[in-house]
Amino acid sequence: MTEKLSDTGRKTMLPPLLAAGWTLDDARDAISKTYKFDSFVSAFGWMTQVAIWAEKWNHHPEWNNVYNSVTVTLTTHDVEGLSSLDAKLARKMDQLAG
Amino acid sequence: MTEKLSDTGRKTMLPPLLAAGWTLDDARDAISKTYKFDSFVSAFGWMTQVAIWAEKWNHHPEWNNVYNSVTVTLTTHDVEGLSSLDAKLARKMDQLAG
Repeated sequence: MTEKLSDTGRKTMLPPLLAAGWTLDDARDAISKTYKFDSFVSAFGWMTQVAIWAEKWNHHPEWNNVYNSVTVTLTTHDVEGLSSLDAKLARKMDQLAG
Repeated sequence: MTEKLSDTGRKTMLPPLLAAGWTLDDARDAISKTYKFDSFVSAFGWMTQVAIWAEKWNHHPEWNNVYNSVTVTLTTHDVEGLSSLDAKLARKMDQLAG
């Protein structure tokens, strides 16, 4: 069962993500980041890797792609806010982006 | 060399696309459509097919994916409006969506 991030969870998980370029949208309780790649092939290749992890974890991003740029928003609809799954997927995205 | 759609080109190419569910954004001179699939895997699988054609034709969509839904906007930045490439990619997207 996915649960909304506790205050303690937020204090542990959010600072490293904010330091890595994620921004917090307080109104939606969501995190966002824009990734830039060197080409469309690189951008979509990264999306394809992320898509497989997202499906494996049954937790999917909202994302927008324009050529070499991908803007991602993560939140957990079931809990109407951030859960540990968002932090986990965000870290995987950063790792896959190198 | 890609050229902006002529008045004659518009009269030929746009009506079938509008009939197929595309909408015209006059301000941007762009066309948009939202596709719904039965799952994230189906949605992203379709995106992957489209991505390969887009790269092959060197003409890329702006698109947004949220789970089983993909919203696409097509326009040609080089000509600041619609070109025959947009109509060609729109038809391919419809064809691949079945």
